[in-house]
Amino acid sequence: MSVINIALLGMGTVGTGVVKILTNNAHNISQKVGIPVVIKKILVRNLTKARTVTTEAELVTNMEEILNDPDISIVVEIMGGEIPSKDYMLAALKAGKHVVTANKDVVSKYGRELFEAAEASQVDFLFEASVGGGIPIIRPLKQCLAANQITEIMGIVNGTTNYMLTKMSNEKLDYADVLAEAQAKGYAESDPTADVGGFDAARKIAILASIAFGVRITLDDVSIEGITNISIQDIEYAKELGFIIKLLAIAKQNEQGINVRVHPALLPASHPLASVNDVYNAIFVKGDAVGETMFYGRGAGELPTASAVVADIIDVARDIRHHVSSRILCTCFDQKPIYPVNKIESPYYIRLLVEDKPGVLAAIAGAFGAQQVSLHSVIQKRKVEGSTELVLITYRVSDENIRLAMSTLLGMSVVSKLGSVIRVEAEQIS
Amino acid sequence: MSVINIALLGMGTVGTGVVKILTNNAHNISQKVGIPVVIKKILVRNLTKARTVTTEAELVTNMEEILNDPDISIVVEIMGGEIPSKDYMLAALKAGKHVVTANKDVVSKYGRELFEAAEASQVDFLFEASVGGGIPIIRPLKQCLAANQITEIMGIVNGTTNYMLTKMSNEKLDYADVLAEAQAKGYAESDPTADVGGFDAARKIAILASIAFGVRITLDDVSIEGITNISIQDIEYAKELGFIIKLLAIAKQNEQGINVRVHPALLPASHPLASVNDVYNAIFVKGDAVGETMFYGRGAGELPTASAVVADIIDVARDIRHHVSSRILCTCFDQKPIYPVNKIESPYYIRLLVEDKPGVLAAIAGAFGAQQVSLHSVIQKRKVEGSTELVLITYRVSDENIRLAMSTLLGMSVVSKLGSVIRVEAEQIS
Repeated sequence: MSVINIALLGMGTVGTGVVKILTNNAHNISQKVGIPVVIKKILVRNLTKARTVTTEAELVTNMEEILNDPDISIVVEIMGGEIPSKDYMLAALKAGKHVVTANKDVVSKYGRELFEAAEASQVDFLFEASVGGGIPIIRPLKQCLAANQITEIMGIVNGTTNYMLTKMSNEKLDYADVLAEAQAKGYAESDPTADVGGFDAARKIAILASIAFGVRITLDDVSIEGITNISIQDIEYAKELGFIIKLLAIAKQNEQGINVRVHPALLPASHPLASVNDVYNAIFVKGDAVGETMFYGRGAGELPTASAVVADIIDVARDIRHHVSSRILCTCFDQKPIYPVNKIESPYYIRLLVEDKPGVLAAIAGAFGAQQVSLHSVIQKRKVEGSTELVLITYRVSDENIRLAMSTLLGMSVVSKLGSVIRVEAEQIS
Repeated sequence: MSVINIALLGMGTVGTGVVKILTNNAHNISQKVGIPVVIKKILVRNLTKARTVTTEAELVTNMEEILNDPDISIVVEIMGGEIPSKDYMLAALKAGKHVVTANKDVVSKYGRELFEAAEASQVDFLFEASVGGGIPIIRPLKQCLAANQITEIMGIVNGTTNYMLTKMSNEKLDYADVLAEAQAKGYAESDPTADVGGFDAARKIAILASIAFGVRITLDDVSIEGITNISIQDIEYAKELGFIIKLLAIAKQNEQGINVRVHPALLPASHPLASVNDVYNAIFVKGDAVGETMFYGRGAGELPTASAVVADIIDVARDIRHHVSSRILCTCFDQKPIYPVNKIESPYYIRLLVEDKPGVLAAIAGAFGAQQVSLHSVIQKRKVEGSTELVLITYRVSDENIRLAMSTLLGMSVVSKLGSVIRVEAEQIS
């Protein structure tokens, strides 16, 4: 074997990046692998579409031309979406080809099936680019932190929402204005639901949790709440109290089982994730041996994502050169109970509009107390149309009790409006 | 083969951590490898010394008992120091045993020899724990970022000095007081030179630069300056100007070649490394595809360092199970010129004591101008015994020109004292 031939499925943003890197850094990569890595074929929909990069690869429109080409040993799926990506990957694995993918949708939903197919064919199945773009996180979890029992993963894994929250915070802009701007810049889709609704982050945390805990987690196991209700007031008040609001993807493991969720949360300003801004992503991992560690970088984009895809290609190529494969496949050996988000205790940030008269604070504190909710701090903020805005932070309390307390409060005549209820992720308030 | 037998060389802090992890997480690790990993022998100096962990491993005092034991396939060197560690590792590699080490001294000095021995014997030689303790950085550079041309590494890789600088900054304490406290707490040695002089950081950046640039870099190639001259005044003034002073280990590559150095520097407070505090380490890496990325965690300590050592053990064990070895060995394929620190241009922070009279500032600005040094900002600080303290930040200037300017200034009658000259690592001042 004098070269390693690969095929790309798709030539959109990430595909273009892969072509660029394999061209520009060809010498370097060939040294690392031992022989050149060459793109032989690229599956595209339209043969005549203008491309921003030139490649000597043959453009094809039929997947069979790749599956039936015995020279192609690695298939790189960078089309995105579930259909036909999943079927193409399965077919490639069954045809004995190694597969590299950046596809979080397929990995989070059909991971088991793909791993089984890879194992049956004794080939590699790698997906570093499916979470965190260019940030090394899958391989660090599978290899570098393999000695650890991972107890917690907390990540900012969606660049669009992090850009929006950063912008709201820095420029005191409203959610709607920032969303419109993000859409104009191409950071947010015209239907922004996958990002702002937390679904993109949920798929990514499902993948990370599966690897970290050795248990197969799918999207259905994730409690999801997006950022659509976050207001500039909450961001400002949180800041005054020493917190930053971020959309967090969280997976925690304890004796009760595993909890996986995506929701906005107040983080202490001193937390390493609190200063991760704009489109940057970061994943904070806690292990029993390593302690706290964090991985930071660009979570999306042509070249960062392609960086992770090409790293996987190089890894497979090294395996091919050393006649080894499926060295590290599925590590979901265990089954553990998933416990729902309403069993999680945490401190809460609450914003209320209340009547501005004596005795109101005592009445409200009493209502919280009746539901076993202790208050860590209470701050009276601005007057709004004859009412006073109250901002409270509770001690650790169950989701159930906070809901009961909120429904009691809403029934009180002195409470005119419930502004926000947001979890606080802080160990010092407990 | 039903188990993988390993031997530890040394049972100090890190060795104890390795025993704990392999015991506590045995089930988990055995699932990942496929069969159990068992410590068969431990090389110690004193058989009767009291130990803080119990192990069923046989304690031995003679290296031959490990070298001649055909059941032992992995030798784990965690004694530290150059002698006899290096000879033991070489002997183990020559005996066909895989070697895992945490030894930055030996890897930075004798890396080439060890890699060659590993290659000749077709075994693995891994050293993730030699830099950054538990932080995954060697494997990310060798694998996850393999698609990139790395242009820059900037790290806080010495926990002792970062603890000291953080303490000085947060509690406004002097260098001497903080050093004494760090020594009392066991964070600094009684002879603190290796840490405060920058030599520990220099060994680590030599290792990182070798991997990142594919060029063998040794300690002799690193320009080294420690933190012994950093005063609380400089830390305070830097903070007022929006900068944090850190001991940085830096490796940069451009058309001229490679520059590798350790020195204190002012970093913009918004830089991801600026908020890395206490004993935490972090390594910031810039690649042509991935952009800016950062790896953060505990850079030392029993369990964090052992986490990295055991990750390497698991990786070797996976290789053994798949009958593959030396999949990724030395990647220093190239030779590139090393250019010295005095060829580096950067902005500088300068603190001076000058006479408090009209025209002084103009005279000083003139002296800088005569050496092609432009001033970005000048601030008059407190009066000290009839003189005024001046704090200046220059634009990007060569080391040579700043030295010439400083010697001119020291010859001026209006300049009574030169306080500090510290590099600024900031792209916005250029």
